[in-house]
Amino acid sequence: MKRGLSIVLVSGGMDSCVTAAIAHQEYEMAFLHVNYGQRTETRELKAFNDIANYYSVKRRLVADIRYLKEIGGSSLINKKMEIEKSQPNRARIPSTYVPFRNTHLLSIATSWAEVIGAHIIFIGAVEHDSSGYPDCREIYFKAFNQLIEKGTKPDTHITIETPLINLTKRDIITKAMELHAPLHLTWSCYENSTRACGVCASCLVRLKGFKEAGVKDPILYKNSKS
Amino acid sequence: MKRGLSIVLVSGGMDSCVTAAIAHQEYEMAFLHVNYGQRTETRELKAFNDIANYYSVKRRLVADIRYLKEIGGSSLINKKMEIEKSQPNRARIPSTYVPFRNTHLLSIATSWAEVIGAHIIFIGAVEHDSSGYPDCREIYFKAFNQLIEKGTKPDTHITIETPLINLTKRDIITKAMELHAPLHLTWSCYENSTRACGVCASCLVRLKGFKEAGVKDPILYKNSKS
Repeated sequence: MKRGLSIVLVSGGMDSCVTAAIAHQEYEMAFLHVNYGQRTETRELKAFNDIANYYSVKRRLVADIRYLKEIGGSSLINKKMEIEKSQPNRARIPSTYVPFRNTHLLSIATSWAEVIGAHIIFIGAVEHDSSGYPDCREIYFKAFNQLIEKGTKPDTHITIETPLINLTKRDIITKAMELHAPLHLTWSCYENSTRACGVCASCLVRLKGFKEAGVKDPILYKNSKS
Repeated sequence: MKRGLSIVLVSGGMDSCVTAAIAHQEYEMAFLHVNYGQRTETRELKAFNDIANYYSVKRRLVADIRYLKEIGGSSLINKKMEIEKSQPNRARIPSTYVPFRNTHLLSIATSWAEVIGAHIIFIGAVEHDSSGYPDCREIYFKAFNQLIEKGTKPDTHITIETPLINLTKRDIITKAMELHAPLHLTWSCYENSTRACGVCASCLVRLKGFKEAGVKDPILYKNSKS
């Protein structure tokens, strides 16, 4: 018996896939995906639908916030800016930071939750071992929960849950194995859409995680033989 | 000498027009307008551009969050729901409430502010004498300021300002007269786009404000003779 309806933010990457696997244990799920003109948008949307099919999720919302591309300010959505070819460094916020992005995603999730009666929103944000984005920190999500309390109807009660917030990529992959999360359907690469580049910051973090967890990454890389 | 760059949220209604007049006194301005599939979208966009021209504002951003229409839940964006034909009643949140709408608007403003280096965002929200929307309350904007602090880069400092928050419609119209705000360019009606209907909740609030301020409303109404 499930404990009611949840919304899961599913980008199509590993973290959101494992978050869905966690939500699936206890809640009915509705999946939300947001396009913001990122370079690998089409590939990520395919991953979203593949994961939704895997969990037989019927309620799906794909929202378009293309205006973020017009606003700019991030190498993820501006091809003129170079994406760092190195692992994240906590001392500096990387160029892939999309200003205040998670607030856009969570606003859409909250509006949708208030309309369909979901009382929990899952997002696979990771603070530990992560990119240093300010809107991926636990303190930020606490502030967002306060905002929901103040900005929705008095009888609306919605909470943001971040089950991965303190996990390492290694922990996340181990959790994925335990819950049979379909990592073969996920996409992480910031640069390519057919075979992952293996050298962008996102690929490097992913590959390092698999190596540390002692598991083979099931997706194809540009330089892999199979 | 102006005190730096601000972003003003301009829907095209009276409140945002007077807010722009207030911001104009001290700050350079960039104007943000958001379409969310509301019934009078085209008419509101015209009002936005007319007010921007009046103040010679060059930086304009029109963002589209049409996904709110797909999410639904409000008579403002769903023609099947009826809009109340009466003045707001604080005991009940009206059907025109768009769930969590202001968070979407302020997220866009904050991302844009972080990129263009604006340090203040003006929004013409009114708590007093208003609609009872939860995301128009001072307590909500305080929570949003907290969220900005937690969700942006450490060297980013952006504050939401709500100069009308405690004013009545009468006060707002008096302020407009004092600052020569171009109220003749504004649009408030929820229903019509050529002549205002004069009977929707928004028209009723507007007309009552003009009556109390002892000023004639310069726009045309369906039943007016001129």
